[in-house]
Amino acid sequence: MDDLPGEVPRPPYYETLGIEITEIDSGHATGRMALDREISGTPTQAVAHGGAIASLADSVGYWAVSSVNGFSITPTVDLRVDYLSPATDDLFAEGRVCRNGDKVAVAEVTVSTTTTDIATVRGTFKTSGQTGKSPWTIADSD
Amino acid sequence: MDDLPGEVPRPPYYETLGIEITEIDSGHATGRMALDREISGTPTQAVAHGGAIASLADSVGYWAVSSVNGFSITPTVDLRVDYLSPATDDLFAEGRVCRNGDKVAVAEVTVSTTTTDIATVRGTFKTSGQTGKSPWTIADSD
Amino acid sequence: MDDLPGEVPRPPYYETLGIEITEIDSGHATGRMALDREISGTPTQAVAHGGAIASLADSVGYWAVSSVNGFSITPTVDLRVDYLSPATDDLFAEGRVCRNGDKVAVAEVTVSTTTTDIATVRGTFKTSGQTGKSPWTIADSD
Amino acid sequence: MDDLPGEVPRPPYYETLGIEITEIDSGHATGRMALDREISGTPTQAVAHGGAIASLADSVGYWAVSSVNGFSITPTVDLRVDYLSPATDDLFAEGRVCRNGDKVAVAEVTVSTTTTDIATVRGTFKTSGQTGKSPWTIADSD
Repeated sequence: MDDLPGEVPRPPYYETLGIEITEIDSGHATGRMALDREISGTPTQAVAHGGAIASLADSVGYWAVSSVNGFSITPTVDLRVDYLSPATDDLFAEGRVCRNGDKVAVAEVTVSTTTTDIATVRGTFKTSGQTGKSPWTIADSD
Repeated sequence: MDDLPGEVPRPPYYETLGIEITEIDSGHATGRMALDREISGTPTQAVAHGGAIASLADSVGYWAVSSVNGFSITPTVDLRVDYLSPATDDLFAEGRVCRNGDKVAVAEVTVSTTTTDIATVRGTFKTSGQTGKSPWTIADSD
Repeated sequence: MDDLPGEVPRPPYYETLGIEITEIDSGHATGRMALDREISGTPTQAVAHGGAIASLADSVGYWAVSSVNGFSITPTVDLRVDYLSPATDDLFAEGRVCRNGDKVAVAEVTVSTTTTDIATVRGTFKTSGQTGKSPWTIADSD
Repeated sequence: MDDLPGEVPRPPYYETLGIEITEIDSGHATGRMALDREISGTPTQAVAHGGAIASLADSVGYWAVSSVNGFSITPTVDLRVDYLSPATDDLFAEGRVCRNGDKVAVAEVTVSTTTTDIATVRGTFKTSGQTGKSPWTIADSD
């Protein structure tokens, strides 16, 4: 893995949903998202909206893939989420790369609370084959 | 279609992302989401995060399905998003039910800007067969 | 798990492709398919057609799900296949139920040769909640 | 579109299942598969196995994509099938390319009988950017 210089980037969307990337390693990443009211899909109780769960999974899958592609931009081609249980507590996600090809990579992400499996997710991402300075790296140096 | 009494419900998550459901008709729904900085997935320019696009699509698909199931709660079983182009402008989504069974329904949702197809999405939703008062209706009367 | 009386059923399609279900246990099933010319997707060499791989995975996932639903019929609602490598040898599949609900179940199936991961597959299946005589059982007694 | 010289190729697997590609045009393809006993997934009546439906869809999607990529080989990256109704009659499929990029293409395929929608399918395919002699063309000249 190439080193990601400095902090993990945090785009506005992560701030909006409270997504944190907690670890990035070669082909592997983890993240979390607190069950705050902002991400609740129901008006009367805190249950994470499916879109918020998809967002956490996409983000963690992205960094797993990007980490083995020189931290170049690896756009999501498709994302598939299987929802297993309603999420009524803080969420943790763990992603790993299943396949890393010259055109596309596939990552698998599991989302859970400390007690319950919440979703199992797969995403296909474009890989650029770039290993040089990424837009993230460039952005960091601004 | 049963009538949805009063306003379309707006859970906290819709407020967070700026998702608006603009129309709900029998097996059909539309929505929109402005390209504000809050939903941007890149630090330096406004490009909607894939998770925000998934969130809009899931929401619109949900209402298309719920509308033909007595506005009962119809949880998402799985969601599959194909990303076609980066989203650099306000987003519009249109969903329709492809299949409405006694156990599950399938909805198809297209997400676009005024000029560009952004994503094509399919979701499978549980259908309860309920036609009575839904949790949304109950929540409305609080 | 309810016992499956007698032999695992073998519909015509299994014969056509050479699909064998080798084990069915509670929420778990395995199967195999030889790389014969009949399943080859290329005219000049033996490489399994993606549809044959999907067929093996669907079959194994089906039996994993059916085994925890009284061997009732559990039709496939949707199937998602990620192809990891070309299949140039005999294929083995292993499936397990990730979620078994009153309306739908989700199964995950991996397809591999003795040396290579070929595909990773997820399917959503309808569950009937039936635990009595299944159509398979009835067919067996004919 | 480049011309496909001569007949549409017919690999062994098409013969096994009775898949015929009936038309290939720029980004568009059609095919059919008779409901013979060989593709039946049930022992007692003719109902097409889900894997056979996936196979027809994958094949038609493949040719839609390949037709706009110089008839180079465009391997399936992932395939997602939503089953809408049981198939109890001959099957027809129609595919079109939704997106054709330099790395991947996405195709959408609908499968139906003359009276009923059977499945709606999406596939992601690798695109090689090749426009020269394809393996199919080479095979034809043997």
